[in-house]
This record gives sequence, structure tokens and C-alpha cells, in this order.
Amino acid sequence: MDKAQIFQFISKQKTAFISSVNEQGYPVIRAVIPRIINGNEIYISTNTSSKKVKQYLSNNKACIYFYKRGKIKYQGVTMVGEMQVCTDQATKDKIWCFGDRLIYKKGVTDPDYCVLKFTGISAEYYCDLKIEKIEL
Amino acid sequence: MDKAQIFQFISKQKTAFISSVNEQGYPVIRAVIPRIINGNEIYISTNTSSKKVKQYLSNNKACIYFYKRGKIKYQGVTMVGEMQVCTDQATKDKIWCFGDRLIYKKGVTDPDYCVLKFTGISAEYYCDLKIEKIEL
Repeated sequence: MDKAQIFQFISKQKTAFISSVNEQGYPVIRAVIPRIINGNEIYISTNTSSKKVKQYLSNNKACIYFYKRGKIKYQGVTMVGEMQVCTDQATKDKIWCFGDRLIYKKGVTDPDYCVLKFTGISAEYYCDLKIEKIEL
Repeated sequence: MDKAQIFQFISKQKTAFISSVNEQGYPVIRAVIPRIINGNEIYISTNTSSKKVKQYLSNNKACIYFYKRGKIKYQGVTMVGEMQVCTDQATKDKIWCFGDRLIYKKGVTDPDYCVLKFTGISAEYYCDLKIEKIEL
């Protein structure tokens, strides 16, 4: 898998798992639904008041994991990089979807709505028992 | 969800995602198939030469994530705790399965076969948009 193939693979996945590092130094995993997957840049909507926002503001080191369980083989991509918490209106507008109003009652300008922007630095691709490292 | 319910929920899951923290301080997620899930103690077989073993030996802070996507609701459990790398024969014997010989050619005494033992300290349970914290 080269960089382009990794990007193509992750762009097709609907869900992902992200990890932050909390105040005590423990990694913390959560499932997310990425809103935009564009190469090594991945955008996720979240609550500004959430613990992960607090953790990423204090420590921007992050990981995102994608996988596909096929009939024959299992494929996974773990990407490490940095997570930026975006509260600017342009970014909030960019990834807003109509249904988001169910979560963020005040709409696209809701102060409790913000965007996590992940930028990947390197990735590992897993296919069954093989591992390949890819610089991004 | 109380502690017993969390343990019951995770004991039924076939796959999980674990995170370590690497030498540069980045969290790193991988998918695993837990071998034994017994309350807050979870056993996973792995290669002694793997990066995650190196990372956990250097920093034992860990996270494990379980989820179930039902027809109606999504449930997830993220558990933070500590990961011990077990190379003693008793623990290796305990979780060995016949098919493991496909991976560890030298069998149950293969020096490249070892066991990760995770001990959870606290957990969060996610169901749709609600979060509950549980001390273990």
C-alpha cells in the first residue's frame, strides 16, 4: 500500500476510532463518524464541552484507526498525528450537516459545536498478519 | 450500567481496540481479539517482538475499547488501565490455543509468543449520545 492507496482506503470507511492522551497520561479511545476524510486530513464534529476537546487542547497528540473486515481478509490503518480543535465559524460551516441540529440545538453557531481536525504524520497498514509503515 | 453490567457487556465482544502511548508520546490504536475477558482483566496474545510490547514495556498506560452496533442503538465501553507484558510460562500456557501454532511456530514456549494482561481502572459507557463513568 502506498500513500494514495491508504488515503483511498480510509476515505471509504464510515466509522473510525480516535485516541487522545488524558491528563494522567492514559490513552483514551472513542468511536467517531468522520465528516470529511481528505488525504491525511480528517474532520470530526464534536461538543466543545466534551472531555476529548479538553484533552486535545492540553495535548494535541492523537491517533485515528480505520478498519474493514472483509469476507477473506481484515484490513486496518492506524494513523498518528495531531488534532486541532477548530472553533472558527468557517470550519464549523464547512462540515455542518442539517441533522446536526438534533445535537447542537443552537445550530451552526452553537458554542457547544466545534470541529476536530486531525492531520496524520505516519500510518501503519495491517492486512492479516502483515504490517507496512507509510510516511504521509 | 453498573460495574457488573459493564463486565457482562465486554465479556460478550469478540474484538476490541487497544491503545498504547509510543516513544514520542503519541497514542497508537490497534485491533485485537481478546483471548480471556474476566471482569476488568483482559488477556491478549501477541508477538514479543511487536512494537506494542516495546511500547507497553516502556509505558504501561493503556486503553481498551469495546463496542456493539445494534439495529437500534450503538454501545461502546472505553476502559483505561495498565498493561502488563507477561512472558512467564504459566500465563502463556493459560491462554494458548491450538491454532496459535500457525503464528508462533515454536509452540507455547516460543520466545516470540507472549501475553498482554490489561487491568482496567475506570470505564466510560456510551449509549447513543449519553456517557456514564464507572470506577472499576
